[in-house]
Amino acid sequence: MSIYLHDIPLPEAKARLEAALKEADLWRVLGIETLPLDENTLGRVLAEPVWAKVSSPHYHASAMDGFAVRAEETSGAQPSAPVTLSLITHHASSSHAQYVDTGDPLPEWANAVIPIENVEALDENSEIASDIRSPKAIRIRAAVTPWSHVRPLGEDIVATQLVLAAGVVLRPVDLGAIAAAGHAEVKVARKPRVAILPTGTELVPIGSPLEPGDILEYNSLVLAAQVKAWGGEAVRFPITPDNFEAIVQRVQEAACNCDLVLLNAGSSAGAEDFSAKVVEKLGTLLVHGVAVRPGHPVILGMVSLRAAALSGAQRSRSGGEATPAREGIASGASHPRNDTVPIIGVPGYPVSAALTAEIFVEPLIAKWLGRRPGELPTESATLTRKVTSPGGDDDYLRVAVGKVGDKVLAAPLTRGAGVITSLVRADGLVILPRGVQGAEAGEQVTVHLYCSEADIARTIFCIGSHDMTLDLLAQFLAGHARRLTSANVGSLGGLVALKRGESHMAGSHLLDPETGKYNISYIRQYLPSMAVEVYGFVGREQGLIVRKGNPKGIKGLGDLTRPEVRYVNRQRGAGTRVLLDYQLKRNGIVSSSIQGYSQEEYTHLGVAAAVASGRADCGLGIPAAAQSLDLDFVPLFQEIYQLVIPKIYAESELLAPLFSVMNNEDFHAAVTALPGYNISEMGKLVAEI
Amino acid sequence: MSIYLHDIPLPEAKARLEAALKEADLWRVLGIETLPLDENTLGRVLAEPVWAKVSSPHYHASAMDGFAVRAEETSGAQPSAPVTLSLITHHASSSHAQYVDTGDPLPEWANAVIPIENVEALDENSEIASDIRSPKAIRIRAAVTPWSHVRPLGEDIVATQLVLAAGVVLRPVDLGAIAAAGHAEVKVARKPRVAILPTGTELVPIGSPLEPGDILEYNSLVLAAQVKAWGGEAVRFPITPDNFEAIVQRVQEAACNCDLVLLNAGSSAGAEDFSAKVVEKLGTLLVHGVAVRPGHPVILGMVSLRAAALSGAQRSRSGGEATPAREGIASGASHPRNDTVPIIGVPGYPVSAALTAEIFVEPLIAKWLGRRPGELPTESATLTRKVTSPGGDDDYLRVAVGKVGDKVLAAPLTRGAGVITSLVRADGLVILPRGVQGAEAGEQVTVHLYCSEADIARTIFCIGSHDMTLDLLAQFLAGHARRLTSANVGSLGGLVALKRGESHMAGSHLLDPETGKYNISYIRQYLPSMAVEVYGFVGREQGLIVRKGNPKGIKGLGDLTRPEVRYVNRQRGAGTRVLLDYQLKRNGIVSSSIQGYSQEEYTHLGVAAAVASGRADCGLGIPAAAQSLDLDFVPLFQEIYQLVIPKIYAESELLAPLFSVMNNEDFHAAVTALPGYNISEMGKLVAEI
Repeated sequence: MSIYLHDIPLPEAKARLEAALKEADLWRVLGIETLPLDENTLGRVLAEPVWAKVSSPHYHASAMDGFAVRAEETSGAQPSAPVTLSLITHHASSSHAQYVDTGDPLPEWANAVIPIENVEALDENSEIASDIRSPKAIRIRAAVTPWSHVRPLGEDIVATQLVLAAGVVLRPVDLGAIAAAGHAEVKVARKPRVAILPTGTELVPIGSPLEPGDILEYNSLVLAAQVKAWGGEAVRFPITPDNFEAIVQRVQEAACNCDLVLLNAGSSAGAEDFSAKVVEKLGTLLVHGVAVRPGHPVILGMVSLRAAALSGAQRSRSGGEATPAREGIASGASHPRNDTVPIIGVPGYPVSAALTAEIFVEPLIAKWLGRRPGELPTESATLTRKVTSPGGDDDYLRVAVGKVGDKVLAAPLTRGAGVITSLVRADGLVILPRGVQGAEAGEQVTVHLYCSEADIARTIFCIGSHDMTLDLLAQFLAGHARRLTSANVGSLGGLVALKRGESHMAGSHLLDPETGKYNISYIRQYLPSMAVEVYGFVGREQGLIVRKGNPKGIKGLGDLTRPEVRYVNRQRGAGTRVLLDYQLKRNGIVSSSIQGYSQEEYTHLGVAAAVASGRADCGLGIPAAAQSLDLDFVPLFQEIYQLVIPKIYAESELLAPLFSVMNNEDFHAAVTALPGYNISEMGKLVAEI
Repeated sequence: MSIYLHDIPLPEAKARLEAALKEADLWRVLGIETLPLDENTLGRVLAEPVWAKVSSPHYHASAMDGFAVRAEETSGAQPSAPVTLSLITHHASSSHAQYVDTGDPLPEWANAVIPIENVEALDENSEIASDIRSPKAIRIRAAVTPWSHVRPLGEDIVATQLVLAAGVVLRPVDLGAIAAAGHAEVKVARKPRVAILPTGTELVPIGSPLEPGDILEYNSLVLAAQVKAWGGEAVRFPITPDNFEAIVQRVQEAACNCDLVLLNAGSSAGAEDFSAKVVEKLGTLLVHGVAVRPGHPVILGMVSLRAAALSGAQRSRSGGEATPAREGIASGASHPRNDTVPIIGVPGYPVSAALTAEIFVEPLIAKWLGRRPGELPTESATLTRKVTSPGGDDDYLRVAVGKVGDKVLAAPLTRGAGVITSLVRADGLVILPRGVQGAEAGEQVTVHLYCSEADIARTIFCIGSHDMTLDLLAQFLAGHARRLTSANVGSLGGLVALKRGESHMAGSHLLDPETGKYNISYIRQYLPSMAVEVYGFVGREQGLIVRKGNPKGIKGLGDLTRPEVRYVNRQRGAGTRVLLDYQLKRNGIVSSSIQGYSQEEYTHLGVAAAVASGRADCGLGIPAAAQSLDLDFVPLFQEIYQLVIPKIYAESELLAPLFSVMNNEDFHAAVTALPGYNISEMGKLVAEI
C-alpha cells in the first residue's frame, strides 16, 4: 500500500494550506477591478469601502407637491382664522409662496412646504382657482413648522460618510446607495479563476452512451457550478486519461492561467492515482488525506510555476534544466502573479468531491474575494435513527429535515459517497466530530441547513412502503408549496415511524393473512392509542419481475424453488414481503427452498435492477418497476396501497394540498398512465381508527 | 386634486392584477428553454420534472480497489484458518479472484469485493508478492458477505425515477444529479424580460455633475438588479422626460419586446405625473394607489399591444385607425406572444420603488418562472421605540436587528421614503398591518429578515453620540466578522439605551459642569446598578462650523447673539449640546438670545450640512464634519469622546474585536488622518464603575 495517504485532522490540514498561502502572499484579496456601476455588479464583492462623494439630496428638496413658504409667515393660521399668501412667478424678496413639485429645490427664501392638498388655491378675485397649481394666492388654515415637508440636504447621505464597507456582497439597494453617493463606478474584487481538471481513463462526458465501466464525468460540472455560486470563475478542462505525463502537462497549463487548480480525482492511493505524485513533481505536497468522511483522500499542495515551466520543457520524468524559451510560459502568462499556485486533489466520489469543495474551496474563494466565508444557518433537531461513525474522522451526515408535531427531526440519508442524490435530497448536514463514535436515535443534533426554515415547515415526511406514484405525488405537491420527503422502510416500518412521531403519513399495503384485509389490523396492533385515518391511494398489480422474454419460463411462485432460479426479496416488514410469505404459506412452499430468499432490496426498483443486472432471475414487485427497466412481468396478485395518516395531520394545513392532489384529474391521469395502477379508491376515507 | 389616486388594500390590488393576467393567459410559466447542462444553468428554474434516463451506477461497480470474489468461496476464512484464492487474468468459470479498481465493473461471476488492504498477496511460491495488484493468489483471513464493497446498479439513481421536480431552482448538486440520470440538456423556464423605463425631466444619469434640482436616476439600476436577482432579464431604457407623448412612445416600444413594463415614476397625481394617463390610453388601468407605505402611489395595469401599435401609428392623442403596416409592430415582434402586457407604475422615491418591486414584481417573476415566491425568514424581536403608523396602510418599517443579552431587538430606522440608506442598513422589515396605528416600545414584533441569524449574532449595537470615527470603526470591525450598527441619539440617549438593555455600548462625551470631567457622574446617575467600563476612544476639537471664508466673521460664542447670525443646534441630550450650554452659562449668554437655538440636528454632519446649505451660519461641532463639506472651522474647545460598555459585554467574544481594532495601527492611522483627532487614550480603561 501507498505510504502517502495519512489522514490528518481538518483544522491541521486547513492550517497547512493557509500557512503555505501566506508564505506565497496569496492569503488576501487577489486583485481589484473597477467596473461601471450597473446591474452586472450585483453579487460582486466590494474591494474598498465606499465613501460618499456627494450628499443626497444635494440640496434642500421639496418632499411633496405643494407651496414653498416661510414657516414664520404661516404662524397663527387656524381653521377659523386662515392666512392668505400671495404667489409670485418671479423671485422677489417680498414673495410669500411658490409652487414646487416633489423633488424641486426649495427656493432660497423658503424654509417649509405646504402640501397641495392642504391649501385653498385662489384666483385674482379670491375665488377658488381653476388650476390649483398656478393660483394667484393660497389660503391656509394651519401653521407649519420650519423644515416640514422638506428633505434637507444630506437627509440620506452626507458627503464623506461611509456608505458601505469593503467585503460587502453587493445587493440591489447597495448599488442604489453607491449611485446616490455620487459614484458611477465600483471597485470589486476580481473573480478568482479556478481550473477544474477531470482525470480518469474510465470517464466519459455527460450524455455519452454508456458501456459497463464507463463513468459519467459530472464532478467537473458540480465543481464549476459551486465555484460560480461562490463568486469565482470556473475554467473546465477536458477529461485527461490516467497518464502521469498527461496529467502533469494539464496541471502546468492550468496553473499558468488560474489561481487554483482542482485535480479530480486520482487523489487516493490506488494503482492509477497519480495526483499526489503530480503535486510532488510540480511543487509541494502539503497534505495527503484529511480525517473527514466522506472525502478523506484529499490532497492539498502548492504548484510552482517555475517547476511547471521546467517540467513542461522536458516532458519527461527525469528532471533537467529548463530552456529559456519555456520559462516564458510563466512570465508571459496572461495572468501574471506569484510563482506558486495552490492545488487541491479532490476525491472522485461525487459526494466527497462536492463536500471537499465546500470545506476547502469555498473559504479560499471567500478569502480571495474579501468576503466572509459562507455559513449555513443551524437548527437543532432530533435524530430519527442511530448512526455509527468512524471515530477517527469528522463525519458529514446528510439528513432530511422536517417538523412533525412540535419536533424538528433529522432523518439520516444514505451514507454512500457515490450517491449524489443524497446531497440533492439533503436538507442539511450533521457533523459528527472526530472522537465521536456515532449518535443515538432521539439524540439532539445540530443541523447545518441547506434549506430554509420555511422549507422545513412545508415538508411532509412520508415514511413507509415505497410506491412509484409517490414520485408523482411529490411532483404535484411541489406545485402546492409542499415538499414530500419519502423514506422507504417498508409498511411496518412506516407504522413504527408514525408511532414514534417521526412522520406525517405512511404508505402501507400490509395484508392481514387472517382477514384478507389490508392495514387495519396492523394499525390496531401498532398504533393502539393513536387516532388514525386511512385513505385509499392506489390499487396495483403485484407479480414477478423477470428478465426480458422470461428466459427461465417463470410462471408463478412454484417456479421459485427450481434450482436454476435465483430470487431477490424485499426486506422484512415490507408489504410485498408479507404478501410473498402469505402466498408461499398458502401454496405450501418453504422459504429455505428458494435461492436468494435472504437477498433483500428496499424498493421495487431495487428488485427490478437486481433482475436487470442478472443478479437475480425474478422478484415479487409491481409492473411499473419492470417496465421502467424494460423487463417482463408475470402478474399474480392484486393489492391495495393506502395512506395511513394520524388524524391530527390529516386535518392540518400542511397536508391539505395532499387531498387536493388526490382529487386532481391531472394527477389521476399521470398515475393511470403507469402500468397496473387503478385509482378507484384514491382519496377515499377507508377507515377511521 | 386628481381623482385617480385612491388607495386600495394590497390583497385587492394583487387580486386585480392576478385576474387580469389570468384573463390574458399570462398567469403561468411564460416559456421553456432547452439548455446544454453546464454551470450556466445554475440558478435557472426547472420547467419540467427530470426523470432518470439511466441508472447510476449503470452496472455493479467495485466500491474499492481490491479483489472481486464470490462470497461463498470466502466462507470459513478466519485469522487462524486463512483461505487462499488463486488469481486469473483471463475469464474462466474456475476463477476465484480478480483485481478491480474502484469503479470497475464487477466481473459477472463475482458478487463481492475484498479491499486490497484486507488481503495478503502471494507470488507463485506462496510468498508475499512484490506487486500487490498482480499476485498469483490472495490469502484472506475473514469471510465476506455477498455484495459487500459493491455499489449495486441503481444505488444512486434508478432509471425512470423522479430526480427533480419542476420549479426547482438549480443548485450545483442538482446539476450533478441531472447528469448522473443521463441527461446532457435541461429544460428551464425562460427568463421574463422586464422593461425599466425611468421618466422625469429632473432626472440625470448616475455619475453626472449635479445642479440643484437634478435628481440622480438610480431607481432603474436598483430595479434592474432586483429583476436580475429574482431570475428575470432587465432591459433598461434611457431617461424619458416628463412628456406624455414621449412616454407613450416609450411604453409601446417596451411592451412590444418585454413581458412586463416598469414605469418609474410619475405614478402619483402631480402636475407631471403622466403614468396613469399613459396606461389608460394604451390599455386598462387596474389600480391607482395601494394602501402600502412607503410606496402607495402604485399603478397596476395592462397595456394592449394592439392599442400600442395603433397609437404608435399616429403619434397623436386623437385616436384613429391603425395602418396595416404598423400592426406589424406587435405581430412581427421578436418576442411573439399574447397581445397584452402588464405594466406597473413604480413610485419615484427610492425606498418606495424598491419595496414596490419586492411586493409586486418578485412574485410575478416567480410565477413566470414556475418557482415559489421568495420568502424572507422571520424572527421575533422587541421594538426599541414607539412608532406611529397611518392606520389606513400596511406600513413597512425598516429596522436594524441585533441581539443584546438574550433579547433580539428591532431598532426602527428612518421612515423617509427617499432614504435609500435606510434599506441598505435595514436588517429586516416589520410590517404594521392596516388598521394598526403603530407599535409601542417593548412590543414583540415579527421581523422579515434581510440578514441571517448569524449576522444578528455578530451585530454590535452602538447607540449614543455620533462621531465620524464610528464609520471607520465599522469598516475595521467588518474585517473581524462584526457588524457595527450605530444609532445616533446623543450621549444621554446612549446611556438610557444601555440602561434599557438595548445596546452593547455607547459613545459618550458628557461633560459634568461641576467636575469638568467627562461621563463618570452621568453614568453613576443613569446606570446606578450596572457594572460599566469606560474606555478612551478619541480626543477631539469642538468649535464652530462656519461657511467657507467665515463671511460673518464669527470668532466665538459671543457672536451667536448677533442678530444676523443664525445658529444650528444639536438635539437635547447630545454631548455637544451639553458643552454649548455649559460654555454659554460660563460666558453669561442666554440661549433665547441665539437665533436658531431651537433648530436641532442629530449629527455633526447634519450641522455641517445646515451650514453648507445656508440654512444656518454656524453650529458647534467637530472639524472633520466641517472639512467633509468644505467648510471653515473655528476651534474653541477640547473634548473627550469615550466608549461606555457594560462589563458583561466588554468581556464578551462579540466585542473582543473592538479591542483589537482599538490597538490596530492601521486604525490609528485612519483616525489621525481626520482633522482634529488624537488617539492618545484609545483603548485605555479609564474607569470601572
